Amino acid sequence: MTSAPAVPQSATPDLDDHLDVHLEDEEVAVVDAWWRAAMYLTVAQIYLGDNALLREPLRVEHIKPRLLGHWGTSPGLAFVYAHVSRLIRRTGQEAIYLAGPGHGGPALVAASWLEGSYSEIYPRVSRDAAGAQRLVRQFSTPGGIPSHVSVTTPGSIHEGGELGYVLVHAFGAVMDNPDLLALAVVGDGEAETGPLEGSWKGISFLNPQRDGAVLPVLHLNDAKISGPTVLGRKDPAEVRALLTGHGYEVVEVSGSDLPGMHHRFAAALEHCWTRIRSIQDDARSGGWDGSRPRWPMIVLRSPKGWTGPHEVDGVRVEGTFRSHQVPLSGVRENPAHLALLEQWLRSYRPEELFDADGAPTTGANDPVGALRMSATPAAGTGLPSADLVLRDFRDHAVDVTSPGAAQEESTRRLGRMLRDVYVDNPTSFRLFCPDETRSNRLGDVLDVSDRAFMEAVVDGDEQVSRDGRVMEVLSEHNCHGWLEGYTLTGRHGLFATYEAFAMVSASQTVQHSKWLEESLALSWRAPVPSLNVLLTSTAWRNDHNGFSHQGPGLIQVMLTHRAEVTRVYLPPDANCLLSVADHVLRSRSYVNLVVIDKQPQLQYLDIEAAAAHCAAGAGIWDWAGNDDGSEQPDVVLACAGDTPTLETVAAAQILRERLPALRTRVVNVVDLMGLVRPSDHPHGMPDTFFRELFTDDADVVFAFHGFPGAIHQLVHGRPDPGRFHVRGFVEQGTTTTPFDMTVLNRLSRYHLVIDALHNARTTPQGAQELEDWCTAKLAEHHAYVRLHMEDLPEIREWRVGGA
Amino acid sequence: MTSAPAVPQSATPDLDDHLDVHLEDEEVAVVDAWWRAAMYLTVAQIYLGDNALLREPLRVEHIKPRLLGHWGTSPGLAFVYAHVSRLIRRTGQEAIYLAGPGHGGPALVAASWLEGSYSEIYPRVSRDAAGAQRLVRQFSTPGGIPSHVSVTTPGSIHEGGELGYVLVHAFGAVMDNPDLLALAVVGDGEAETGPLEGSWKGISFLNPQRDGAVLPVLHLNDAKISGPTVLGRKDPAEVRALLTGHGYEVVEVSGSDLPGMHHRFAAALEHCWTRIRSIQDDARSGGWDGSRPRWPMIVLRSPKGWTGPHEVDGVRVEGTFRSHQVPLSGVRENPAHLALLEQWLRSYRPEELFDADGAPTTGANDPVGALRMSATPAAGTGLPSADLVLRDFRDHAVDVTSPGAAQEESTRRLGRMLRDVYVDNPTSFRLFCPDETRSNRLGDVLDVSDRAFMEAVVDGDEQVSRDGRVMEVLSEHNCHGWLEGYTLTGRHGLFATYEAFAMVSASQTVQHSKWLEESLALSWRAPVPSLNVLLTSTAWRNDHNGFSHQGPGLIQVMLTHRAEVTRVYLPPDANCLLSVADHVLRSRSYVNLVVIDKQPQLQYLDIEAAAAHCAAGAGIWDWAGNDDGSEQPDVVLACAGDTPTLETVAAAQILRERLPALRTRVVNVVDLMGLVRPSDHPHGMPDTFFRELFTDDADVVFAFHGFPGAIHQLVHGRPDPGRFHVRGFVEQGTTTTPFDMTVLNRLSRYHLVIDALHNARTTPQGAQELEDWCTAKLAEHHAYVRLHMEDLPEIREWRVGGA
Repeated sequence: MTSAPAVPQSATPDLDDHLDVHLEDEEVAVVDAWWRAAMYLTVAQIYLGDNALLREPLRVEHIKPRLLGHWGTSPGLAFVYAHVSRLIRRTGQEAIYLAGPGHGGPALVAASWLEGSYSEIYPRVSRDAAGAQRLVRQFSTPGGIPSHVSVTTPGSIHEGGELGYVLVHAFGAVMDNPDLLALAVVGDGEAETGPLEGSWKGISFLNPQRDGAVLPVLHLNDAKISGPTVLGRKDPAEVRALLTGHGYEVVEVSGSDLPGMHHRFAAALEHCWTRIRSIQDDARSGGWDGSRPRWPMIVLRSPKGWTGPHEVDGVRVEGTFRSHQVPLSGVRENPAHLALLEQWLRSYRPEELFDADGAPTTGANDPVGALRMSATPAAGTGLPSADLVLRDFRDHAVDVTSPGAAQEESTRRLGRMLRDVYVDNPTSFRLFCPDETRSNRLGDVLDVSDRAFMEAVVDGDEQVSRDGRVMEVLSEHNCHGWLEGYTLTGRHGLFATYEAFAMVSASQTVQHSKWLEESLALSWRAPVPSLNVLLTSTAWRNDHNGFSHQGPGLIQVMLTHRAEVTRVYLPPDANCLLSVADHVLRSRSYVNLVVIDKQPQLQYLDIEAAAAHCAAGAGIWDWAGNDDGSEQPDVVLACAGDTPTLETVAAAQILRERLPALRTRVVNVVDLMGLVRPSDHPHGMPDTFFRELFTDDADVVFAFHGFPGAIHQLVHGRPDPGRFHVRGFVEQGTTTTPFDMTVLNRLSRYHLVIDALHNARTTPQGAQELEDWCTAKLAEHHAYVRLHMEDLPEIREWRVGGA
Repeated sequence: MTSAPAVPQSATPDLDDHLDVHLEDEEVAVVDAWWRAAMYLTVAQIYLGDNALLREPLRVEHIKPRLLGHWGTSPGLAFVYAHVSRLIRRTGQEAIYLAGPGHGGPALVAASWLEGSYSEIYPRVSRDAAGAQRLVRQFSTPGGIPSHVSVTTPGSIHEGGELGYVLVHAFGAVMDNPDLLALAVVGDGEAETGPLEGSWKGISFLNPQRDGAVLPVLHLNDAKISGPTVLGRKDPAEVRALLTGHGYEVVEVSGSDLPGMHHRFAAALEHCWTRIRSIQDDARSGGWDGSRPRWPMIVLRSPKGWTGPHEVDGVRVEGTFRSHQVPLSGVRENPAHLALLEQWLRSYRPEELFDADGAPTTGANDPVGALRMSATPAAGTGLPSADLVLRDFRDHAVDVTSPGAAQEESTRRLGRMLRDVYVDNPTSFRLFCPDETRSNRLGDVLDVSDRAFMEAVVDGDEQVSRDGRVMEVLSEHNCHGWLEGYTLTGRHGLFATYEAFAMVSASQTVQHSKWLEESLALSWRAPVPSLNVLLTSTAWRNDHNGFSHQGPGLIQVMLTHRAEVTRVYLPPDANCLLSVADHVLRSRSYVNLVVIDKQPQLQYLDIEAAAAHCAAGAGIWDWAGNDDGSEQPDVVLACAGDTPTLETVAAAQILRERLPALRTRVVNVVDLMGLVRPSDHPHGMPDTFFRELFTDDADVVFAFHGFPGAIHQLVHGRPDPGRFHVRGFVEQGTTTTPFDMTVLNRLSRYHLVIDALHNARTTPQGAQELEDWCTAKLAEHHAYVRLHMEDLPEIREWRVGGA
């Protein structure tokens, strides 16, 4: 065993005595050897460019030119991994490992190489001396792999980048995965983030009958990059109270003594696993009263940089923030440091850990085949998951006899479609929503599935139960993260949220897009179901809410992602929404953003026309314009989004009726990315189609749901983009009517008509009169608003300027 | 007193008996009358368009055409407000009230009107019957005020929009505000969000000697919009454990019985206030051991919609989610409902609450003058706060004898400047940073101020103490929110964070921008110091981190805000950074985004040139180009951001040396918003200046730090925007060298030279040779990368395609 450095043991209570698991010496030896090998390879990755297995004395020229990486958290990550592997060996438990302290990348990469899965996936990094050499060379090196756990790391569904999501990913992974155990290591740095603190409550939504289990290991090592952590320094009694309050049974293991730590951690793990299985067995065999189980978790206190250099140049390193990254920094210049490094590396006794060929001798600790956590099918290693069973979306079509004849809450139709999806896919589809399923008119799903809730359900509650699969929690972070974990393990879902507050989880959208972008290049990663985001309660229809509830910013964020994964849809009505929904639910490896309001709105296309329109992504609405198929309309009125479409159709009607001499064409865009050049986006419409819609040179008045700059960006490089005059949300809003919102943002039908007149190819007789009429209409509106406000306080005086 | 509805009392323990405060009947009467008045006015705002004070029998025509608003949370908010007012009256405590359940807007507006501050600020909403009429009319009405607490609400620094930030705002408000008590009501809906859960730990950073106190009231009423809440339904013992674990002393008050609730809540408040004062007195009189105090907080359990309709049409409403918004919805159509509404309104006995003129008779509960929470100076009601004391920023200038001669970590100079700011402004400036102050090269501030930390400090810790004012917590949400609270109460600060992870708090940036946008129109709100955000560790220099750490997305988000508040600066070197920093620290009411990397970088301008350059916002760098002041350069090389500037200057050098016949101009842009038309942004440079820089018609090769679309957006409407060819971050990244990052994103010097050659007005002799040379250079780089990778696993094969 590794000799224990003289670190004072924590004062916190160790695991209860009744957990008297005691490992035989041989068992300890197996786990400890594996742990030493993982640590050895971690240090080697950080330091060595050559002499990877230390088969010769260490010399300066073996050291990498630049030393990068994170040592501090790695020994703990490897320690936990070693012991979970032992548990898997003994029990056959299917498990997935999520490393919250994701900068411990080298430890996880080492684990995969030791288990053999790394070489199976990347044959050149073979399980021998040559492979070991490549393994250490590639780490944190240009052209190599990053220092954190990444998409390239076998067994991972969790990027070690932005902190905060290890538990939401773990909970998402085990939903409807009854046999899976997600081992989630939470670092005490990450534990300070809001999203992480908000994610302990996952157990309040986890049903032991049909879901798997999450076993959190809160790894307290006291320090972040250069300072202490709150949970690391809190009185252990407070930490215990906190986690007990979240609903967990807290099992604590602390210290650095060996083999004591092996015995205690093995006992803790044994205890937790037994408890988890007993909870599950009870629930699945009818012996459960339905109350939320007190799930176990582990608090592991071990020194930061455990087993690393204890002191360097007289300054304590092990157990302090100084071991966060590279604890011995001057090894190329300072022979004493070089000697210390060699001593450190040799303390793991590499000669015992690798055979003559350089293959690891630590196989006795490895589970077999797919039970290895670095090869678990749950992490996308293997065949694609099953597609959703989807009925014909036409089943829920709105009957549209003529454009604009019907009015309907479009998302209500989607709710009916999703109700069917729930029925037909009882264990592979979930809807995630921050407390707004009914408000978003998706409530029909609640007829076939309650909301999931494991805390007390009382008389008077409606459609809430432990058996529900509709996930409502007032946390965009939880909803988004659960869905990520759910889809990354092969299942399907939809996150429906308030448009303005989608920015709360925008960084998750960004990070998930990056994950998908990288995964597309790795053939061993099975394509995963897309992350579908539905935004409703939009900026334009927030009647009684104010400015803080009005913001279409997520579209803008989506446009920064790589084209391969980015899809943005703005269906103008219910039938288009159904067609789009059908498409996105069948798709894989995208982030699909769908934006449509929940309020009653005009319906334009019958279901077949809608399907064709959505398949094309955009089209000319002949019935709305009056250019009669001419190739040379005087002006094109384009629109994307429900409210802009309404105003555009109304503007076209005004023009048709009051200035028929002007040949106006109406183009509706559903698939926003169609506007991009085909060289820049797979959905980019061919130039010929673009010209068919927008002509070569006619001016285009474009009414857009989001910020106008988005359209300017998208049509860049198209023929004469300067002719696109975009109206959109220009950050004007308040508590007001939907129509006034369009006036405030200069996107109303009257503004569009005036824009059309100003930019049309010709100026027919009567154009000036029509402009005057529109101006008068707007003045009338302003007068009405002002009149209305006259009786209202001066609080809103500023607003008249805005209008 | 209001008669108590028959709501079962919660099973949780009431306040300890030893808190035996018992109010005299007259005292109860004063508080209860005020509470009834606030509730009456809340119901009136939701329902009544006329007959505001119910001086005649209620008729259908008094009812608003559309019923909007949130009743459920309002009685609790008003109850707490009434009692805190009583406490203020008795103690003279300076207090500010933050309503987490911000949709209880009508209760807070009612409070302000009752206290008189509403009429002082908005005289037409007078404190009489006519004013009451206007008060109810304006609520949730077009042209009126939103249903949630907003910028227009006197006494508020906290918008009732996006949930999660009530505690971060409260903690920010009391930092360096030793006499202030921030009463923060946390709703059980909001309590589910990640940011809120992550913000309880504010007390781990709050020093009772020099900071004020936050008194959280966790208001559990069991339900959100249509379902139960986790904390509302958890075993109360777990809730207690959770909050105890966060470090609080938990005082619980539950029930709906009256006057019992008055007695118990008054006692709880008394207890908490006494405890807070005792903590503060101890700390300030030397009787403190320095350990983190156990600050008190209140858990208030009261029925949702307390005192509202108990049952409607046989269905229970009070105490359930059904009272979340408008509990009686059919009052216009259903006479029985109308009668119920009248009965409900009259249950508050309005005839006792308003005098003959309609003025409230509840003044006995109001604190005087600025002690009224709706008139607290802390909430920006009054004179602007003091400016920062700032020395000459030139003190820390880098000595630049010629462009590019020196290399320097630019942010280190900023660190020295901020060190002085700390010294000169000991109680009105703080730096907020997620654990990265030293890593961001701002560590010099730690020479004069430690990091703040109230948990245990141990041997070996460096620059950490309870007296520190550098705020480090691994939570962007806390950092951003604390700074918001700090600046909204008149103090100054800077949030420095990792560029890629700035998206974590992007929604806070959005919401704060919206707050500032609205506040500019309200003359009674004093201008507040700007929210300054510094992004460092940028996409281009994330050498050993991977793709997840590379993302300049916040710039894109900033561009969606209104021009009045949006400022984006990309200083190319240290001296420009100092000048920009001086400017933003003096500014008010903006969100200033400053982006510059922390790594050593070339220095271009001496300090006077830098100051002049930043004042202009952009300029021609004659020394870099070779058009010798010609008005007709063949091509313009423009740049914004440090790495793009480096590549542009290098490209210009290549062109100068290898193709001197080509007249190249170099333009550097610091103030990004200068690119926008002056009609669209106050910083927009005049067209004459724009033409001086970019000419009328020369092609511009623009190297940009962020996503290229941003520049396309910004130059829209400028002369011939199609001539701007933008290179920027196009979402290509990996673990690689800084130079390779520029190659991957096609922004390298060689790409820029080729772009210049392709777009120049003329094609001098030798252009093709130079292009060939650049292509060869890029091929050489690719070969080098490929060679380098040859020894590396196939894991990165995909990458070659990217390059």
